[in-house]
Amino acid sequence: GDVKAGRQKALQCQTCHGLDGRSKLPEAPNLSGQVEPYLVKALQEYKTGARKNEMMSVVAPNLSDADIADLAAYYAAIEIEVVGKP
Amino acid sequence: GDVKAGRQKALQCQTCHGLDGRSKLPEAPNLSGQVEPYLVKALQEYKTGARKNEMMSVVAPNLSDADIADLAAYYAAIEIEVVGKP
Repeated sequence: GDVKAGRQKALQCQTCHGLDGRSKLPEAPNLSGQVEPYLVKALQEYKTGARKNEMMSVVAPNLSDADIADLAAYYAAIEIEVVGKP
Repeated sequence: GDVKAGRQKALQCQTCHGLDGRSKLPEAPNLSGQVEPYLVKALQEYKTGARKNEMMSVVAPNLSDADIADLAAYYAAIEIEVVGKP
């Protein structure tokens, strides 16, 4: 996936997931630094209907395989660090 | 959910997700600092079968609602920060 292209495509994700991958809603997961193959799988599953979600099931069918690869590459490329443990 | 109890219960999750919530496998998502209601929903969906995964569909049915609340509280309580943007 192409990180720069993914950043552009992520503009449609930012209302819920943030452009930096920090969730804006209690139902939306953080995506920053998420494992890239996991993100690809999640989007493919929403696209095919194997996984369902009110919002994602509407959005994902419009994504091409390249869109999915780019979005996964972008969000995975945001570096995160654990800064505090309970 | 109880964070301390969740830490104990997370010992069964650490081979794939890490005790600090950093994924050990390309198929397993990071859980550190993940949105708590999202984690509860994910585990409940794996438990009921609404969401399917080779590993999680085996593990989740053995979790009580309290287990799920505790695990979600624990992983959500690990603080993460974005340290680098692409």
